[in-house]
Order: sequence, then C-alpha cells, then structure tokens
Amino acid sequence: MTDTPPRANGARVLADLNALRAIGTYKTGVHKPTFSDAHMRSLEWLAARLPEAQLAATIDGIGNVLGTSAKAGPKLLAGSHLESQNHAGWLDGPLGVIYALEAARVLNADPGISGAVEVASWCDEEGHFGSFLGSRSFVGAVMEAEIDAARDRNSDRTMRQALESVGLNGRARVTAERGRHIGYLEAHIEQGDRLETSGLKIGIVTSIVGIWQYRITFTGEQNHAGTTRMEIRKDAGLALARFCVAIDEAFPKICGPRTVWTTGRITLDPGAPSIIPGRADMLFQIRDDNPQVIDRLEAELRRMAAEVTAAGRVAVAVERIRTGVPALMNDAFQDAIEAASQVYASAKSVRMPSAAGHDAQVLSTIMPAGMLFVPSIGGISHHWTENTADADIITGAEVFVEACRLLLQRASGGVD
Amino acid sequence: MTDTPPRANGARVLADLNALRAIGTYKTGVHKPTFSDAHMRSLEWLAARLPEAQLAATIDGIGNVLGTSAKAGPKLLAGSHLESQNHAGWLDGPLGVIYALEAARVLNADPGISGAVEVASWCDEEGHFGSFLGSRSFVGAVMEAEIDAARDRNSDRTMRQALESVGLNGRARVTAERGRHIGYLEAHIEQGDRLETSGLKIGIVTSIVGIWQYRITFTGEQNHAGTTRMEIRKDAGLALARFCVAIDEAFPKICGPRTVWTTGRITLDPGAPSIIPGRADMLFQIRDDNPQVIDRLEAELRRMAAEVTAAGRVAVAVERIRTGVPALMNDAFQDAIEAASQVYASAKSVRMPSAAGHDAQVLSTIMPAGMLFVPSIGGISHHWTENTADADIITGAEVFVEACRLLLQRASGGVD
Repeated sequence: MTDTPPRANGARVLADLNALRAIGTYKTGVHKPTFSDAHMRSLEWLAARLPEAQLAATIDGIGNVLGTSAKAGPKLLAGSHLESQNHAGWLDGPLGVIYALEAARVLNADPGISGAVEVASWCDEEGHFGSFLGSRSFVGAVMEAEIDAARDRNSDRTMRQALESVGLNGRARVTAERGRHIGYLEAHIEQGDRLETSGLKIGIVTSIVGIWQYRITFTGEQNHAGTTRMEIRKDAGLALARFCVAIDEAFPKICGPRTVWTTGRITLDPGAPSIIPGRADMLFQIRDDNPQVIDRLEAELRRMAAEVTAAGRVAVAVERIRTGVPALMNDAFQDAIEAASQVYASAKSVRMPSAAGHDAQVLSTIMPAGMLFVPSIGGISHHWTENTADADIITGAEVFVEACRLLLQRASGGVD
Repeated sequence: MTDTPPRANGARVLADLNALRAIGTYKTGVHKPTFSDAHMRSLEWLAARLPEAQLAATIDGIGNVLGTSAKAGPKLLAGSHLESQNHAGWLDGPLGVIYALEAARVLNADPGISGAVEVASWCDEEGHFGSFLGSRSFVGAVMEAEIDAARDRNSDRTMRQALESVGLNGRARVTAERGRHIGYLEAHIEQGDRLETSGLKIGIVTSIVGIWQYRITFTGEQNHAGTTRMEIRKDAGLALARFCVAIDEAFPKICGPRTVWTTGRITLDPGAPSIIPGRADMLFQIRDDNPQVIDRLEAELRRMAAEVTAAGRVAVAVERIRTGVPALMNDAFQDAIEAASQVYASAKSVRMPSAAGHDAQVLSTIMPAGMLFVPSIGGISHHWTENTADADIITGAEVFVEACRLLLQRASGGVD
C-alpha cells in the first residue's frame, strides 16, 4: 500500500471533547455523576454522533452506549466512559470515547480498510454505583441481584431508582457476542506524571495493577479525656496513627518498584473532643501488578498488627475487603501502539503499567486488550484542574487511529 | 457544743440515687440527655423533694432547679447536675445533687445550726446544647443571643425549640443574688482511678483544670491513589498521623505532672479509599491547671507545625479554638472537707486537682467554691458501667454533710 494512511482530524477531536465539556461544566472540568442529567445528555450526544461513523447506536439497560458496524471484515472494539468523578476533569473518560469515535469515523468509511472500529461508552467506570458495572455487564459478569443491591454513593437512592428515573429500567443489557471482536483498545490520560517528566507523548500500557483493600480496626478503651492519666490510656486513635507511620517505614523496604499504598479514610469512635477514642479504623489500599509483592506486604501488615496486639494495650485486626486481579495487556496490541507512535509521536513512547483501574482490565477477561496513555499536566487527576496539552491530545488521537488501523490490517492478514 | 453533730442518712442517700436511676435507666446507668423526658422527670422529682429540706423549689427558664431557704443565717449553695451524657453512668451529676439535698435535709431542720444549705441542679453541665449553660446563666454570663444560637448536638433542634417543648421558654432565668451565699460546694465522682489505686476515700479538689482546644489542619495535595508515585505525594493524612506520633514523643518531656492531651477526632478529606487525602484535620485538646505549662506545650505545637510546613510537602496550621481558665478552689472549703474527712473517712483524703470540668469552676467566678470527689471503680466515666461502691457513696455523703456544717458554723462565727 503506497497511499498515505488515513489520519485523525485533530481539530475535530478537540471540538468534540469541548462539546462534551460543555455538558455539565464545572470550572474548567465537569461534574457528571453516573445517571445525572449531564451524564445522560452526554450519552445521547454520543449516540447521535455514531451514525457519522457508520455505526448503529444503542443505549442498553445499564447505560452502556454501543455503536455497531455492518461493515464486513474484522471488528475492533474501542471506547472508554463518559461519566466523571464529582467535580472532576474533562478528559478522564471522554478522551478515550472520542478517540474511538474518531477512529471509527476515519476508518469505517474508508473502503481501503478491511473491517471496522466499533465504539463503546461503558457506564459507571467511576464507580458511583459499583465496580465497573458497565463493562462487567458487557462481559457477562453482572447478575441482576448485584444491580438490585447497588446504591448511589452520592445519595441514598438505589441503582434501580436511578435507572427508572432515566428511563433505562427494564431495557435489555447488551453482552459481548463471543468471537465478534479482534480485541479492545482504550485510550486514557495517564493520571500520573511519568510521561510529562520524561518528555514522552505515549504510554503503552503493559498491565493494569490490581487493587487490594483492607479495613484495619483498632480496639482500645473509651474513656474521659480529662480524668484518665496518660500512662493508663488505651487510645485506639493514637495506635492507628502509630500504625500508619509504621507502615510507611516498613513498606519501602519490601515493596515492588511501583507499589503504592494509601490510607484514604480514618474514623475515630466516638469522635468527640473530650473522649479518648475506644475504637478507630482505617481504609487502607495497596496497588501493584505483582500478587507476590502483595503477599509479602500483607504478611507484614498482619505481623505488625499481631505485634501491637501482643503488647496488650490496643488490639489490631486486619481484614482484606477487596482482592486485586492484575490484568496483562496483549503483546500485539502493545506492538501496534508502539509502531503507531513511531509514525506520529516521533517514537516518544514508553511501555508502562497502569496504576489506575480501567474498563480495559474487564474487557481483557474475554478478548485481547490494549491501552495507550497521553500525558497529564502535573500528573493531576480526579480534580477539575486535570488537563492535557491540545498538541498532546492531537498526537494521541493520531497514534490511536493508526494503532486501530494496524490492528485491523493485521487481523485481515495484510501487511503495511 | 457537746451534742453529736447531725449525720447524713446513708440509706436515704442510696435510695434517692436509685430513684433517680430508675428514671431513664440504660443498663446499669442512665440515658438522660438535656431536656429529654427522663431529664425533665428527674428535675420534677428533685423539685418535689426540696420541701422536705424546708426549701422552696423553682425550675427556671434555662432548666436550673433551685431550692431557696427562708431560714435566718448564712446560706451555703450546694449541688451538681441531673442530665447525663448519652448512655452514661448513674452517679455523674446526681451524686452531688443528692448529697446537697441530704445536707439540706439534715442541717436546715436543725435549730442548732445557724443558716441553711440551698440546693441547685445546674442544667446541661454535660454540654448537649452548650458549655455549662445552667451555671453560667446563674452567674449572669449567658446572653439571650447565646441561647438563640444553641442547638442540640444529638439532633438538629434548637435550644429554643427544646425549651418550648418542655414548657420552659419565656420563663425567667434566676441569677445569683450577690452576697447571699457564703460559697458553693459540689461533690462528684472522681472519674479517674487515683483514689481507688491509693486506697483513699475523699479527693479534696484544689483546682479545676482548664481545657485548651486546637484545630490542627494539614494541607497537602489531593491526588489519585493509584497513579501518584509515593515519592511525589503530598499526603495530608499521613502528615497528620506523623504529627500525632510526634506530639506523643515531644509532650512527655515538657508537660506538667498531670497534663493530659487527646486527639478526639480525625477527618481526612475527601475520605475515599482511592484518593490521597489533600486535607486532614484533627481536634486536639490539652488539660492542665497551670497556664504556663500550656504556654510551653502550645509553643512546641506551633514549632512542630512550622517545621513540617517548612519541609515543603504539607502545610500545618494550628488554631486555638478554646482557651482554658483553670479555677482555684477556696482554701477554707478545702480545709472544711479535710476536717470532715478526718471525722468520717479516717482521714483517707488527698488534695488533688480535677482533670474534668465542673459547674464549681463557673460558680468560683462569683463566690468561694469547693469540691470533693468519691472514688470511681476502675476510673470509668462517661460510660454506663461507671460506678462507686455503696460504702464509698455513704462515706462521701457523711463527709459532705459535715463539711457543709463546718462551713455554716464558721460563717456564723461559731467554733466546734
């Protein structure tokens, strides 16, 4: 083939991303919780665009938007999500959806391309109601009982009430047609600062880390904050603070090169200024792509807890409440992204794991999957100031469309 | 005078305390929040008893119960409070009220005693609506605007709504008639374990500690708990934990012999498992009877905060939100309690500061004041298991009545 391959239209991509930012704008970002009015209008906006890419649009019973092609040849699924964290950034989700739409627009209409890109917007990747409910529904991993039990973490309404209010209750959920897709490709902002600090433009995701979560509970003795001498106190809150500091001293010696750990929430009970806390608990999370590293860290956590408990003042209990499943990205997909980066990003790419969870990890359970990252300014994420330079957004779109083209070509048995 | 002095009736004291426990019982303690039905019935119970002590009863516009004597001679004011902390002990408050009632019953009817004991039950010592609202109203320190603004910490109702619902709104508040009383005497459970561990029966309070309170705020940078490398994090929660541990290392080197400090509440913001806290704050309290010790500790707190801030990762702000005013108990009152302890407690008494706040500190701003403690089993307080041995309750009553007698006698210019 000697023709110039079709290329992403950068201006169109930026215009589409800004059109989505205009729905549910918050400062320079957006506020689009799952099933909010702004979220639903974003889904409808996408559904209205899909015919431009020769795709038939469906919004299914869990809020997934799916664009299906009637074109012959291999089908590559691509997408991301359109809802946001509360008061968060404009690109987290929409970037991957618009790249997918752009790839479909560029490639599906081209008679020189065998096959098509199909577009998906997965509902609730941000977890307002659950954990990857949209993509997990598509791969067949969500039973009705899970939806029955799901609640909005922003309010007290159930998922059923939310589905009813947006007119989706009772609508069928679409699940994957096995064998239809050669795989799934997703683009996303990096959400970290590795690309920016290295002057790179494209992250080629090798794996998506697993998330392990723990509830660590401290039981001491509630007492009067005035009359109880320091020497006889059994202060659960102070024991918790000491534990956090001890973790931060112990973990760096035994963690992996990219392990991260976070105490996101602390509760002292009863939480009054004049009462020594008798109970305290913390939500603690570890992320890594290597379960053996987690085994080591969890054993250390349990050893530390036993040591504090044995000292006899405050009892510490470690309960694992979430077990991570790291996902490997497909080698051929990584190679396609790298080849596309050589053409459109001056080879300024790097292979790297994703420390954040993405729908690609769910899709990877039923088909080959790949992901690419574009740089995040200052590494900022889950905040309305999240941003990526326009030039980097355009470069990412060009690499994405080319990677899609290469993957379809490879599936058709063609060579470049 | 050669007659045996009048003595407390221990059985009657125990019966009265048990009668009050039977109103609003919770397990072996009580649940009597301010202006609850159980609290109001307790006030009415007391008002009905006061005539037995030749006192005219009033329940005033803030819920104070006052028993006034028409007897000639010096008047000693005595009392405590009848509401409880939520699900708390049966003696915290009622002990001092019943001792005062018993002293009035024993001494006011005795023609050999010049003067009388007047009884008070101060409303809301436990602070459901404010800080010592009842006793502060009596000394003239509560403006109407403070009552307008007060709210129930257990619910969202205003103090005005609560007063209305119990029929007290619009009723006059009684304030102290200057010069009427020779002073104020209050008995209370110790709420600590000092008397018990020393085998002593009576604590003679020398001073009531002041409470200084601080809000310490940590400002870092909120970020994604997966994608933000450990090295670049500005974790406000971890900084808070380190600060708590640092306080506990620094304070013992520079505190006073009885200083206590407590972190009662910790809040991480936003408090989600996958987000590095960008802000964190803690409520921190110090109690001591020596403001110079507090000056030293507060300076150290501010030095530590400046040091962390200067390191550049997380900024720490220390804001003092409550300034303690230690209250000295009157020497003659201490001497009277000691003399009474020699007669009725085999001199098993000790002079000691109170680490808890009491209405006596408020009354001490307008008249001489004194306090005595009885032992708390296991030092337990603000919990329904709070208790004192019956024999110790009786000993305390005998010492209290005798101390009242000695104070009235002294005021009449008499000698024993």
